[in-house]
Amino acid sequence: MNRTIGIVLLSGGLDSATVAAIARRDGYCLHGITFAYGQRHEIELQCARRLAEFFGIGDHIVIDIPSRIFSSALIRGSAMEVPKHREPLEERSIPATYVPARNTLFLAYALAYAESVSAGAIFIGANAVDFSGYPDCRPEFFSAFQTVADRGTRAGVDGDGIRIMTPIIDMKKSEIIMLGTQLGVDYSLTHSCYDPTAAGLACGACDSCILRRRGFMEAGVPDPTRYGTG
Amino acid sequence: MNRTIGIVLLSGGLDSATVAAIARRDGYCLHGITFAYGQRHEIELQCARRLAEFFGIGDHIVIDIPSRIFSSALIRGSAMEVPKHREPLEERSIPATYVPARNTLFLAYALAYAESVSAGAIFIGANAVDFSGYPDCRPEFFSAFQTVADRGTRAGVDGDGIRIMTPIIDMKKSEIIMLGTQLGVDYSLTHSCYDPTAAGLACGACDSCILRRRGFMEAGVPDPTRYGTG
Repeated sequence: MNRTIGIVLLSGGLDSATVAAIARRDGYCLHGITFAYGQRHEIELQCARRLAEFFGIGDHIVIDIPSRIFSSALIRGSAMEVPKHREPLEERSIPATYVPARNTLFLAYALAYAESVSAGAIFIGANAVDFSGYPDCRPEFFSAFQTVADRGTRAGVDGDGIRIMTPIIDMKKSEIIMLGTQLGVDYSLTHSCYDPTAAGLACGACDSCILRRRGFMEAGVPDPTRYGTG
Repeated sequence: MNRTIGIVLLSGGLDSATVAAIARRDGYCLHGITFAYGQRHEIELQCARRLAEFFGIGDHIVIDIPSRIFSSALIRGSAMEVPKHREPLEERSIPATYVPARNTLFLAYALAYAESVSAGAIFIGANAVDFSGYPDCRPEFFSAFQTVADRGTRAGVDGDGIRIMTPIIDMKKSEIIMLGTQLGVDYSLTHSCYDPTAAGLACGACDSCILRRRGFMEAGVPDPTRYGTG
């Protein structure tokens, strides 16, 4: 019996870790892909590597993307500042932490990788409920990318196609954490903060920390995060 | 007066050189982007650099893409062979030179770059007439990617959007060459062959050489290509 091959995008964060657990539960044999694109910190890359090990993903590739093609507050050396202490879900504008076309580029790499290893699915931990308002995290973006995958690959035109899987896109952060906890995810291996301290502690005040902290609280699951402030 | 900024994908080939000339004619201020992805030869990168200089493109970036994510006969070290002496337009199957999701990945990079430098257009020299049958060279692929650009970027959601421009997609190779010649393109700076000799001469027998050679002949324009065989 051939198990279906899947690609999982591992960011080192809570969402993609949960998605890896879901894909594994559903019987996928996983390859992992992670991107180094001049993030403000290296911690998330370390977390992605540890998570790949935790999930027994043998084939995990880390792709370097030259950060100069991105203009964003999330990029190391950027003059822009990571917004703090705001209410992520009430802000309607796209924040400074938006990285231009990031998910398009990540999915494009995953698509090339998927087709090269004959994978039938790409798992991405995008979420459009407890999120920062990025345009490339919304369901209509992923349905558009699915059409690109269907029309722009040999697998899509001549084969069974490659499915873009967004299993947690409609879930609240607390629901994601509850599901991941049931599936045995060790969230102490994950990192969410956009702007950690030099010692690698979470700031507790950026959008991502606010959503994560609230999620654990609402889920009634102990938060393993070490916060440096807040 | 602000001239509109455009990104042009420069492969070093005849098509993208012509598209650069068209964009310049139409008043765009151009940035260039070229990809090094383990092609079988470095000549096309040299050609892309010379063409950027020829067109006065000051900001030309070369992006390294790790070749191991691609499985294709076009990749250096591939066990697959570049098909020779076939009739490109009569073959209905996608050839071994297909590179998985290549144009998706190239456009994704161009999209990130475009949004970061506030460009309004991306020019790509795709052609669906005299081509090798790749799925990601057809108009329906580009219209799908346009939707991704519209939905997945801040420019698409909150701004004027980024247009994917395929000005030569419906032209015959001979028409492309005639137009480029009128616009002053120096085709001796371009390279098309999939499998050149060690000395950098074109093989004359791969799909790309066959289409190029025939194009110059039908256009009635002297072919500046140096062929090593054929």
